[in-house]
Amino acid sequence: MKGEREFMKGNEALALGALKAGMNAYFAYPITPSSEVPETLAKEFGSPKYPEFKSFLQASSELEAISMVIGAACTGAKVMTATSGPGFSLKQEGISYGAAMEIPFLVADINRAGPGLGNLGPEQTDYFQATKGGGHGGYRNIVLAPNSVQEMASFPALGFSLAFKHRCPVVILADAFLGQLKEDIVFPTISTERFETPWATTGAKGEERHVLESLHLDFVDQSNYAEHLIEKYEDIDATEQKSESYMASDAEVVLIAFGVVSRLCKRAVNGLRAKGVKAGLFRPVTLSPFPSGELKSLVDKGVKKFVVVELNAGQMILDVRLAVEGKNTVDFIHRVGGLLPASSDIVRRVEMISR
Amino acid sequence: MKGEREFMKGNEALALGALKAGMNAYFAYPITPSSEVPETLAKEFGSPKYPEFKSFLQASSELEAISMVIGAACTGAKVMTATSGPGFSLKQEGISYGAAMEIPFLVADINRAGPGLGNLGPEQTDYFQATKGGGHGGYRNIVLAPNSVQEMASFPALGFSLAFKHRCPVVILADAFLGQLKEDIVFPTISTERFETPWATTGAKGEERHVLESLHLDFVDQSNYAEHLIEKYEDIDATEQKSESYMASDAEVVLIAFGVVSRLCKRAVNGLRAKGVKAGLFRPVTLSPFPSGELKSLVDKGVKKFVVVELNAGQMILDVRLAVEGKNTVDFIHRVGGLLPASSDIVRRVEMISR
Amino acid sequence: MKGEREFMKGNEALALGALKAGMNAYFAYPITPSSEVPETLAKEFGSPKYPEFKSFLQASSELEAISMVIGAACTGAKVMTATSGPGFSLKQEGISYGAAMEIPFLVADINRAGPGLGNLGPEQTDYFQATKGGGHGGYRNIVLAPNSVQEMASFPALGFSLAFKHRCPVVILADAFLGQLKEDIVFPTISTERFETPWATTGAKGEERHVLESLHLDFVDQSNYAEHLIEKYEDIDATEQKSESYMASDAEVVLIAFGVVSRLCKRAVNGLRAKGVKAGLFRPVTLSPFPSGELKSLVDKGVKKFVVVELNAGQMILDVRLAVEGKNTVDFIHRVGGLLPASSDIVRRVEMISR
Amino acid sequence: MKGEREFMKGNEALALGALKAGMNAYFAYPITPSSEVPETLAKEFGSPKYPEFKSFLQASSELEAISMVIGAACTGAKVMTATSGPGFSLKQEGISYGAAMEIPFLVADINRAGPGLGNLGPEQTDYFQATKGGGHGGYRNIVLAPNSVQEMASFPALGFSLAFKHRCPVVILADAFLGQLKEDIVFPTISTERFETPWATTGAKGEERHVLESLHLDFVDQSNYAEHLIEKYEDIDATEQKSESYMASDAEVVLIAFGVVSRLCKRAVNGLRAKGVKAGLFRPVTLSPFPSGELKSLVDKGVKKFVVVELNAGQMILDVRLAVEGKNTVDFIHRVGGLLPASSDIVRRVEMISR
Repeated sequence: MKGEREFMKGNEALALGALKAGMNAYFAYPITPSSEVPETLAKEFGSPKYPEFKSFLQASSELEAISMVIGAACTGAKVMTATSGPGFSLKQEGISYGAAMEIPFLVADINRAGPGLGNLGPEQTDYFQATKGGGHGGYRNIVLAPNSVQEMASFPALGFSLAFKHRCPVVILADAFLGQLKEDIVFPTISTERFETPWATTGAKGEERHVLESLHLDFVDQSNYAEHLIEKYEDIDATEQKSESYMASDAEVVLIAFGVVSRLCKRAVNGLRAKGVKAGLFRPVTLSPFPSGELKSLVDKGVKKFVVVELNAGQMILDVRLAVEGKNTVDFIHRVGGLLPASSDIVRRVEMISR
Repeated sequence: MKGEREFMKGNEALALGALKAGMNAYFAYPITPSSEVPETLAKEFGSPKYPEFKSFLQASSELEAISMVIGAACTGAKVMTATSGPGFSLKQEGISYGAAMEIPFLVADINRAGPGLGNLGPEQTDYFQATKGGGHGGYRNIVLAPNSVQEMASFPALGFSLAFKHRCPVVILADAFLGQLKEDIVFPTISTERFETPWATTGAKGEERHVLESLHLDFVDQSNYAEHLIEKYEDIDATEQKSESYMASDAEVVLIAFGVVSRLCKRAVNGLRAKGVKAGLFRPVTLSPFPSGELKSLVDKGVKKFVVVELNAGQMILDVRLAVEGKNTVDFIHRVGGLLPASSDIVRRVEMISR
Repeated sequence: MKGEREFMKGNEALALGALKAGMNAYFAYPITPSSEVPETLAKEFGSPKYPEFKSFLQASSELEAISMVIGAACTGAKVMTATSGPGFSLKQEGISYGAAMEIPFLVADINRAGPGLGNLGPEQTDYFQATKGGGHGGYRNIVLAPNSVQEMASFPALGFSLAFKHRCPVVILADAFLGQLKEDIVFPTISTERFETPWATTGAKGEERHVLESLHLDFVDQSNYAEHLIEKYEDIDATEQKSESYMASDAEVVLIAFGVVSRLCKRAVNGLRAKGVKAGLFRPVTLSPFPSGELKSLVDKGVKKFVVVELNAGQMILDVRLAVEGKNTVDFIHRVGGLLPASSDIVRRVEMISR
Repeated sequence: MKGEREFMKGNEALALGALKAGMNAYFAYPITPSSEVPETLAKEFGSPKYPEFKSFLQASSELEAISMVIGAACTGAKVMTATSGPGFSLKQEGISYGAAMEIPFLVADINRAGPGLGNLGPEQTDYFQATKGGGHGGYRNIVLAPNSVQEMASFPALGFSLAFKHRCPVVILADAFLGQLKEDIVFPTISTERFETPWATTGAKGEERHVLESLHLDFVDQSNYAEHLIEKYEDIDATEQKSESYMASDAEVVLIAFGVVSRLCKRAVNGLRAKGVKAGLFRPVTLSPFPSGELKSLVDKGVKKFVVVELNAGQMILDVRLAVEGKNTVDFIHRVGGLLPASSDIVRRVEMISR
């Protein structure tokens, strides 16, 4: 990864990262704490730096935005939208249609505190919504969880790559803290990657007609199609799990956290090691597919206890417990309402558990 | 339960059951396979039999419908809406607001095949959406899964009772098969139950002003409020789990299924017992809270194998595996696309597994 | 006209007058200064006094309201909506469809100051919009201009009668002053008049199918249909002109005014007569068809001068000048912005002109 | 007027004419028979030939389109929309706001047959709607009536010029025939005219704040403001009347027609002159302000009879009769439903009248 060093907010990095990844279109309805994404794009729209960025529109509603995303995605364009919880909810029907039509697009959810209006602080309460399917019909999104401004910049390219490879919606699940955080990043060079889209509705005269739809009135047709989707999700599960470990190889207690919380946990691991506690960190990068494989291998390596830390009432912990299968205790630390746990709190809690 | 014997469709029973339960208002946007619900209500609206049924409206969209439901619920009215997958997705934002505002209402989702448009056949693919929260912000619905026309008739009363007791949205998750199925039922007598609603915005002059909202800009306020919701969900989990067992006390293999599938499984259990296989059935009636307590007690009683049967790619099975904690094997049978498994298929598969 | 004496606002009288006229349905989106209309109806909805009043709904937009009005009118119901300028503009497309489909309904426009938002004061600036067709396609409304709370109460019955007789939309054009004015009225007895509606889409099984539409793709069909509408408007023009004169038989100067302004002019006529000026008043009750016949007869009787007084920049004056055909001078007095002219101003101006 | 000779449809000429006039933005919802306007613009959007053409959007409704037009106009941009009758009706509220806010924009109405859906043939039935104000509050549009593809190309520049000069909406009232007609035109050179817009909301930091609104709650404020608008309309009336005469100087019978009908009448005049009838043609180019001055001068010159020819039931004829003031007979010929009168029919009718 080469490029100039820059200091910017996570939301700005997400916007510029999408542009560097060759994004063709962006449609959204603004909602705090994601609004710097369209603000940044508005400044760059029309710039000769991004000749591929051809459509940029503030829709008149969240529903209109996702409909525009679907329309653009059908043509094989690289298209993204960004929102926060309430808007993510309003987009669930559209995402279900996108999943069913097998079209690629990116949705960034900058998770604020909820449910309802809640407030503008960071939470990780949309984990279930993103990973288990907020929408109807049992589809699965690929869900990426950046934990730095650098990853906010580089995950759009990763997201487009996965979306086009598997022809499915990809969610970038960040949070209000990460969206507002300012850090130095080194920008990726502009991607010239072009994905093959033989399925796209390009309107080219004299070529084969493509129909992208989700209606299969015949039960056997629908069943075959649904089984095809199931196989696709199994394939994604088998090939796209991604995680990071820190000091986990000899750890007796492993913290598990994603996004911004994983950074606080890393600090806690350092603090615990300094105190002689054999602590480590396991950080899912893909929340869906959940990196169960790597997590199971930690179980096999002899970790005694896991401690999941989340900004919600306990969501990822279900995936952890499913992977651990009752072989280890899984403890839980949480904060909600926009609050973050202090590293020292995590240290204290782990020490208490470890005794 | 007294009353006259009647032969009717599940959707009709749901509508009449809501009326007998004293429903005051119904707002919805019609969608197959739930449309007999508003059709039945349209015929009864204005009838002197149901003087409490004061508002009935076909909204101009799914969003408008859920907004009307929220408005009516704020006044303490017994209000219901019915829909199917795509409409359920569009209502997720509203349901999140309702959960956050702690107002009681019923949402019936007559699950069709999906994702996207899919078809009008039965599936159970909205299990995650209903139980894990399709909407943002980590709320929990109470989810009831009827398995007969009789329960379609009696669950609205149960749903209202739970919704007002816990001040939360309650989902009745049925499916296209159950909605269209015709059976003899004995109707419950009309409920005269009145719930206390000291929190409602009744507009009564000279009384205390009530505000129902979901916005808590201060992080500590939101955190306290979110912790209050967490406690409420723990309380619901502790008190409202509901399930049914059939021949499970001495069973070595236990089938686990909800809704219409539980009936097929019951037949399979009979078939297996006839062949000497010690089979039983565990049927969750509440999908959320999931009846883990009763299921764990089956584990303790010595069940060797569980077989989950669902009309989806595997959703409830996660809750089963979380309850079982790796102590038993959990096998899985599924059908999708509107198809149902034959009892004989289930029998064959269990025999194979049991060997 | 019999009934109890009551003291009320013009808007309340309009609402109750519609109920006494047997109104079946009311759909509207509230807008000041018409909001007392739905407020009054909300109180009476469900009352055993008005068993014919079966549907009452606050729509979610002006467009939805007029669409509901159209739907109800197609069934032959007596349906009304009320609004003010901005809402009247939004309803123009719907009114054009109603005129084209030849269905009867009432639209009350409580004219506020404009254009744009303007303010909540009285004006008569919607005269052209109501009489010349705000909407596309050259249709004509029948437009009634009440000038008292008593007429606000009795014109709904008149309006329904004309609407069903000619199968067309009828506009009651009042203003903010008349809507808010309180006067003693004697209420009409409840109408039991039932209009024949052989054209209505009643959904009755086994009967002839009725289609109400405005699309005529064939040019000759559309031409024949448009000629039929032209004949209908000529028939209305020939039979429904309605006006009132006061001291006009021997007048040399005749004031011409409608609505609230006609009352100020009547006072001015009295003042002028007291000063020896042979003044009179001509008040159009129907603004469309404009009572040209009666006005022309005044011209023939030897009136020397006409003075039109309006709360706009000069709209009805065009219809006056068209009737007068250059045979007399037509002077103009106006006020706008919510202001009313004082009778003494009118007297002074007429004296100046008369010299 | 210089430029290359081109053969094209009226709607294409309108689109390209707007681009050559330096149009910055176009927002519309497509409706036949105006759809070639956005189709042509879609092809040119992004072309280096039109660097000023920065925003082009198909809105999701007619209301959204006019709202976007208003937003762009507030910034001082040259913005246009095109529609046909039903869409023109839906835009009336927005046009009233634009008139009240005194912002410049162009609305092209390609008049189809009406009311309601009618059909796609040409009519002139939106004359009243365009000239007398379809919307509420008594504003006046400037209305231009092209009668050739050449004028379709050149009137956008004229329209922008008038709109910015008087800060008001300008309507180009064409019809389905003119929109579809193909003719050779010589294109105007690209305009570099820049209008002064000291009132615009440009968002420039550190400069005076501009507020564009239409709300004046105080009655005296609103009155002063309304009087200012009245003066503006009088000024427009005094300075912007525009008409064309053909063989009218010695004519005894003068045909009066606008738009496409004026061409048929010109042919009829030639036919009548060949037969010795002293016929002439008067063609209003501005329908509002109506060219009464020039028409009155024809009355003074000794024209004996006027014959108005319109594709409606008689709309412009009112303005003619108001100008003529009863001094001459004014006869009327019309066609509706998409039909055009034949020149020979006009000739025959005039001969009959002239005897």
